[in-house]
Amino acid sequence: MVYVQDFKWTENMKVKDLLDNYGSIGFQSVELKRAMDVFVKMKKANAKIYLTFTSNMVTSGLRGFFAQLIKLGMVDIIVTTAGGLEEDIMKAKGAKFDVGTFDVDDVELHEQGINRVGNLQIKNEFYMQFEDTLLPFIQNMYDEKPRWAVSDMLKNIGGQLDDEDSILYQAAKHDVPIFCPAITDGALGFHLYLFQQKNKDFVVDVVKDFGNILTSSSLDEEKGVIALGGSISKHHAILSTLLNGGASYAVYMTTAQKTSGSMSGATTQEAKSWGKVKDVSDVATVLGDVTIMFPLAMIGALEQLREEKLL
Amino acid sequence: MVYVQDFKWTENMKVKDLLDNYGSIGFQSVELKRAMDVFVKMKKANAKIYLTFTSNMVTSGLRGFFAQLIKLGMVDIIVTTAGGLEEDIMKAKGAKFDVGTFDVDDVELHEQGINRVGNLQIKNEFYMQFEDTLLPFIQNMYDEKPRWAVSDMLKNIGGQLDDEDSILYQAAKHDVPIFCPAITDGALGFHLYLFQQKNKDFVVDVVKDFGNILTSSSLDEEKGVIALGGSISKHHAILSTLLNGGASYAVYMTTAQKTSGSMSGATTQEAKSWGKVKDVSDVATVLGDVTIMFPLAMIGALEQLREEKLL
Amino acid sequence: MVYVQDFKWTENMKVKDLLDNYGSIGFQSVELKRAMDVFVKMKKANAKIYLTFTSNMVTSGLRGFFAQLIKLGMVDIIVTTAGGLEEDIMKAKGAKFDVGTFDVDDVELHEQGINRVGNLQIKNEFYMQFEDTLLPFIQNMYDEKPRWAVSDMLKNIGGQLDDEDSILYQAAKHDVPIFCPAITDGALGFHLYLFQQKNKDFVVDVVKDFGNILTSSSLDEEKGVIALGGSISKHHAILSTLLNGGASYAVYMTTAQKTSGSMSGATTQEAKSWGKVKDVSDVATVLGDVTIMFPLAMIGALEQLREEKLL
Amino acid sequence: MVYVQDFKWTENMKVKDLLDNYGSIGFQSVELKRAMDVFVKMKKANAKIYLTFTSNMVTSGLRGFFAQLIKLGMVDIIVTTAGGLEEDIMKAKGAKFDVGTFDVDDVELHEQGINRVGNLQIKNEFYMQFEDTLLPFIQNMYDEKPRWAVSDMLKNIGGQLDDEDSILYQAAKHDVPIFCPAITDGALGFHLYLFQQKNKDFVVDVVKDFGNILTSSSLDEEKGVIALGGSISKHHAILSTLLNGGASYAVYMTTAQKTSGSMSGATTQEAKSWGKVKDVSDVATVLGDVTIMFPLAMIGALEQLREEKLL
Repeated sequence: MVYVQDFKWTENMKVKDLLDNYGSIGFQSVELKRAMDVFVKMKKANAKIYLTFTSNMVTSGLRGFFAQLIKLGMVDIIVTTAGGLEEDIMKAKGAKFDVGTFDVDDVELHEQGINRVGNLQIKNEFYMQFEDTLLPFIQNMYDEKPRWAVSDMLKNIGGQLDDEDSILYQAAKHDVPIFCPAITDGALGFHLYLFQQKNKDFVVDVVKDFGNILTSSSLDEEKGVIALGGSISKHHAILSTLLNGGASYAVYMTTAQKTSGSMSGATTQEAKSWGKVKDVSDVATVLGDVTIMFPLAMIGALEQLREEKLL
Repeated sequence: MVYVQDFKWTENMKVKDLLDNYGSIGFQSVELKRAMDVFVKMKKANAKIYLTFTSNMVTSGLRGFFAQLIKLGMVDIIVTTAGGLEEDIMKAKGAKFDVGTFDVDDVELHEQGINRVGNLQIKNEFYMQFEDTLLPFIQNMYDEKPRWAVSDMLKNIGGQLDDEDSILYQAAKHDVPIFCPAITDGALGFHLYLFQQKNKDFVVDVVKDFGNILTSSSLDEEKGVIALGGSISKHHAILSTLLNGGASYAVYMTTAQKTSGSMSGATTQEAKSWGKVKDVSDVATVLGDVTIMFPLAMIGALEQLREEKLL
Repeated sequence: MVYVQDFKWTENMKVKDLLDNYGSIGFQSVELKRAMDVFVKMKKANAKIYLTFTSNMVTSGLRGFFAQLIKLGMVDIIVTTAGGLEEDIMKAKGAKFDVGTFDVDDVELHEQGINRVGNLQIKNEFYMQFEDTLLPFIQNMYDEKPRWAVSDMLKNIGGQLDDEDSILYQAAKHDVPIFCPAITDGALGFHLYLFQQKNKDFVVDVVKDFGNILTSSSLDEEKGVIALGGSISKHHAILSTLLNGGASYAVYMTTAQKTSGSMSGATTQEAKSWGKVKDVSDVATVLGDVTIMFPLAMIGALEQLREEKLL
Repeated sequence: MVYVQDFKWTENMKVKDLLDNYGSIGFQSVELKRAMDVFVKMKKANAKIYLTFTSNMVTSGLRGFFAQLIKLGMVDIIVTTAGGLEEDIMKAKGAKFDVGTFDVDDVELHEQGINRVGNLQIKNEFYMQFEDTLLPFIQNMYDEKPRWAVSDMLKNIGGQLDDEDSILYQAAKHDVPIFCPAITDGALGFHLYLFQQKNKDFVVDVVKDFGNILTSSSLDEEKGVIALGGSISKHHAILSTLLNGGASYAVYMTTAQKTSGSMSGATTQEAKSWGKVKDVSDVATVLGDVTIMFPLAMIGALEQLREEKLL
């Protein structure tokens, strides 16, 4: 039994020390500490690690952290949505997003040609430049063959980028497949559509990619799911691990609650029904903003793994 | 200026009466009343109405209501995810889902072959039967041609069903296109993949469907968006109306909050920046569970339209 | 077992019909229907019914509904906070609050002498008038005796009001005690303090009132708790019923979630540990805005009781 | 303008480094960084700092941190509820609370004589011991005089404890008054009531304490409010600073949202209407679990102040 401990600050406190304290403070801090432990367990078990995230996390500065985690070998398979991939490409080409506030005059922003994602802001010009970046990439691919599975297309694009902090770049470099079941849900969709109008045999093959995610891990491999936010990214990773026998480890971080019956709010409680999770210490559901929670718990895990010379 | 009014019950109270009272109670009740008003406005303005919902709402009994709304002419375009379409087909073929509770023993459920979506339960056997239902549909389509845009495929499937309460059936019957940008994110994806393994030239064309949703309304038509829950369904409807000049009316209902910067939590406040919304009375964001909120506000609107002989 | 049923609108739909449908839709709608059923059960069991609510619900139009419920005999004991009692008095003296919006310029409101509670607005002048109303009431009480238990003081004030829609008025008239463990947390506190400065022996006895709430029900009476929102009002009602052996029925309605370990988010799940709750159908926790949820479920219960000639 | 920066881990990362990074990640991380900055500003401005927290935070390990902050001179005035004070006393006398989980069998816990607060657990025996601890304290006070203002009573109790990690002890030692407007809402209330039954002239004077909190800062002093969670503690601190001209600095941390119009969810946006807040950099509202958020932001501030030799 763990007792609640009176927490106290000591000078020059490290993130890892704080995490260790979180385990005996209470409420979500306990879940966060367990998330750190599950990250360490996944890695030690040599599990195939699925990382899923929503687009707004790539809008945020977590983008560089995701790229770093790929480089460090902490991620084997990625599932995400189109918007984040677009913004990863924009940033790889030099786009700078601004930190604003949640309470702004949206009409005024619109007049200034600025798009808002929560308290972050993206200038329209970056969407213009995105088109210029993307079209040659697509043309190159089409010149090679007319029909592309989504993850092959994304790997090809990643290979055409050159930015250490880019998710697509690091994923291509380290053979980490990126799956995006709703590839057309964004500016990407619009440009792919315009391209197809001129090249009727151009096909983005989402069906084939279902096979690719299925075969990206096997029935007898251990699997771990890290789902940041909800939406279809989370659903797709859970679905494909389930078809491969279920994950043994899972960490969900979200602000959504289970009480509405949504996928975004689904907890790791259900993961126990997959038959692979051995006990409660193999899963963690952390309620809270991912931009704060994920770096915290993952840094704790990285420090621990480094300490044990496993990273 | 509207004053807060002391609410009082009167015997045999109608839903419409309660809605009218909500406008002067306060907090979310005021937003809900405005949602009803915006529904009425959309219809009176003859706007193209985009309805988006997440899969769990089809798991719930809202499915029959969505089908009824299509039949009543309250919906022109639908955007949703794969899971809901699958369950619509299951139910059209006789599947019965159970009402359970949120706090259950998931391991036990698993042993009984039951899947849980919040407090609702789906027996595994319905997924088995789904395969049997789906394969002839796909074969029929493939026999006609090997390449299908998603919305064409869904219309074809709807035409092969026979259930008044089915979304796919009513949508096919009333020429309401259903868009599903992540068509492979579900059992559907698995079956399409297996089919493609045997028929290599079988293509589900998501890129072409981007064109279909774009041309499903025009720049000079008035547009309204009803987004129930978040995820890519909401995003896709907003994106496609924006590319057509923006919607003039919008109602978002969700349990997600804007403070995490997610699409699910994005409010209609931003809709003002689209340049088409005339004033605050044209949009409403209601925080709360859709299974309660949507019937309430929509019934209010239907009664009002019926009263004015517009339905 | 209850099956999920396809919901459909029928013309002139009554609130009660909608509630009956909610039981087979799913997610929170099922909880809401159960809340209605528990209200009916409490009444049929002749339980002592504790109603608790936060101040902002009196700011809203629920005030008149609470007064009506007292009149109808649906409430035996009330626990609330100071702000709501102040506003009940203001409204009894003619104050009108305005319905505004959540997104406003607070600096501008301040300059106009307006206070904001969510999307509702209270003019400063009503606080001025409140002082004029309150002082003679206190003077009258003090002339009678210098030391007052809180609930006795509130009953005395209620007796000095004359407004059918007032909670204090109806409670005084129907011998429903109102408990307010934080009586000084508001303008009330300020005025009581100024009065005491001039009359040093004036005492508001919160300790004595603990005895009053304890003896307001007995160990062998059945008890029911309806907690709207959280805070100390909810805590105080649960505490005092627990000291009397625990409630047999409980309905909690709140937007707070249990994941932060707060009283506001505590669910009726715990109520099972009181040893009095017989089964899951005796308690309900509904997540959502009380201004929408409470009238809905309670109207359903009132219609049902009226139908059965129990009201 | 601050740009979004790609976040990257560096080995042996300190909490302060992470906080500095949070300022350019996005969403709630930006708010958290601002909270840290506002803590530093409050201290540098020599403001009177009001700290408010709910009972469950004392159940958690934050108790020791609050005591440490008093000792470090980071807190001038405390407002809280009865439950937390009780648990502070229990812990000072050796009680150990357990870390459990959110999903437990409450009936079983009840049979074992265990009370649950979220995922923390308190044995009934500590409530028994509490009675033994408290009674001599009350008797001592009563022997001195029969009538006690709440904050005087709490200071007296603190003076009778001997535990470095106790909030009451450190507050008494450092002349930090503790206000508790709902002093009877807990076991405390029950014991005070029993004592009064035997000593009729025993009075706990809540009205007098309203004067004490009013005079604990003056109109021309700068004031800062740190509100952790909501409820009447938050309301009481805001009320009393407003009566003294308003605070210049405010940090609210909560899981409640403003959309329900509750005090718990009220944001620092409103603080701008107090007329004292100079600009947006003087206030911060952080959405999230306090057990994670508060140590993070406050450690950042303590490190910063130590670095600048201001602590």
